[in-house]
Amino acid sequence: MKLATLRTGGNRTTAALAMEGGAYLPLPAADVGALLSDPQWRTTVAAAAGAASGTGLVHAAAVELAPLLPRAGKVICCGLNYSDHILEMGRELPEFPTLFAKYADTLTGAADTIDVYGSGSVDWEAELGVVVGMQLFRADESQAQQAIAGYTVANDVSMRDWQNRTLQWFQGKAFDASTPVGPVMVAEDSAGSGSGDGFLVRGYVNSELVQSGHTDKLVFSPARLLSYISQFTVLRPGDLVLTGTPGGVGMGMKPPRFLKDGDVLSTEIDGIGRLENTIRIHQNDGGADVRTPVTATSTKE
Amino acid sequence: MKLATLRTGGNRTTAALAMEGGAYLPLPAADVGALLSDPQWRTTVAAAAGAASGTGLVHAAAVELAPLLPRAGKVICCGLNYSDHILEMGRELPEFPTLFAKYADTLTGAADTIDVYGSGSVDWEAELGVVVGMQLFRADESQAQQAIAGYTVANDVSMRDWQNRTLQWFQGKAFDASTPVGPVMVAEDSAGSGSGDGFLVRGYVNSELVQSGHTDKLVFSPARLLSYISQFTVLRPGDLVLTGTPGGVGMGMKPPRFLKDGDVLSTEIDGIGRLENTIRIHQNDGGADVRTPVTATSTKE
Repeated sequence: MKLATLRTGGNRTTAALAMEGGAYLPLPAADVGALLSDPQWRTTVAAAAGAASGTGLVHAAAVELAPLLPRAGKVICCGLNYSDHILEMGRELPEFPTLFAKYADTLTGAADTIDVYGSGSVDWEAELGVVVGMQLFRADESQAQQAIAGYTVANDVSMRDWQNRTLQWFQGKAFDASTPVGPVMVAEDSAGSGSGDGFLVRGYVNSELVQSGHTDKLVFSPARLLSYISQFTVLRPGDLVLTGTPGGVGMGMKPPRFLKDGDVLSTEIDGIGRLENTIRIHQNDGGADVRTPVTATSTKE
Repeated sequence: MKLATLRTGGNRTTAALAMEGGAYLPLPAADVGALLSDPQWRTTVAAAAGAASGTGLVHAAAVELAPLLPRAGKVICCGLNYSDHILEMGRELPEFPTLFAKYADTLTGAADTIDVYGSGSVDWEAELGVVVGMQLFRADESQAQQAIAGYTVANDVSMRDWQNRTLQWFQGKAFDASTPVGPVMVAEDSAGSGSGDGFLVRGYVNSELVQSGHTDKLVFSPARLLSYISQFTVLRPGDLVLTGTPGGVGMGMKPPRFLKDGDVLSTEIDGIGRLENTIRIHQNDGGADVRTPVTATSTKE
């Protein structure tokens, strides 16, 4: 079972991928997060799929993908989580996960252009995303595993100049509409060989493979991360946890390599899907800052 | 004009402080954030106050204070912002603000008990809070100043053991219901000598003064912080920005001093009000972790 959030005019709807990826079946919920807040969501989706007989389907080429979880209450990310990359850097494996926060505004759609203002060092971080399906608070790993609704693809696009201005990464990680998430969530019970054997996560810049890592190298597994986070804050259906990125980011190259205006960033996980985002680096227009009227501007979602 | 968010049975309402602090006048909005989403909120409050003639008032002793902004979309905090404290530590003044994030779940009410599970080094950080009143995106300082709805009192209670487990502070700063905010927001246009000359921020443990700082020593003023944050993420009515803490936190004492079970943490800003929160440190019950059922537990708000 694969679920997406679609843009429909000025609104959104969640939809199930049907006909081997060729079409979407709209479902009665505004987005995947709203769907997951119904504890019977698996039954709801299955019933809708069973009732559909080709009518109501929307051709995949005709849809626009919204961020999978446009109203996520929490987007919590783990850094430094791939053991092979940590060990090759000569570091010890961490005892605790390094965590930082984003907001729903940080997310963008699987095929959206990423417009960047005010940063000249835009870097990539291909990641597996874990979607929370049940409320979790001070849960053990077994409870956390049961609370995983499914998995998605994300790229924790990072403005390294802003990230490294201070010791706290947040400001370089929370640019609005900079973290693509999607194209779908693969439900945990239908991931087949995916969830069981883990996921292969790949990142490309203009079709050049720059990152490749397998989640069997995660120091902190999805269930362990959710359990750990839930010791201090409640997780709810539709919250998103990003699991960290394997080696191969631009900042680690010699010399460092960053995304240029017009580059296409692709992020792929076998069995889930692929993000493809064009990067637009906007130069400031003569002034020190890009300034827009207070009331006229908003973000994409 | 002073506004609060009150608990009323299972619901909440915003209310204006009346009769020199002796009573509250309930207003037609669920919380201060909801009130501020109406651009005419100042007129709405003034009209309600003018129409009230003693009827409808609730005695201050009869109310329970909710977190001022229980549904804040963003709670963004600045560290290392008092120049006198930075200089006395022998550091240079920072070029950029150190920012980190909390969520609405992190907030708690002005008189609430703060229940702590899983941390043995609970520390205090008395702070001025700035409440956003208008949408801001890539705004300059003048626009940001106009977008300030008002000021409140907060304490960025920090679990130093968790904060220092990794380089990123987030996990020690985002314990649910650990950051008291309130008791009121003083609207910017009625702060009198407050906003104009700045605010004196004080923290007490069991009536002992442990922190005292004046906001005229802020490296990054409220307007400058809001402008800076708005360069990368939109701020909306009801969002909250915490401005950092002056010297005198427990971690900096020799030996370090942390809050004990039963301690009363008070946080005070002249012209705004006072928080008074009892700390409860819960020991684990025999096991390695405190675990509760997945479905049965939630946070206070």
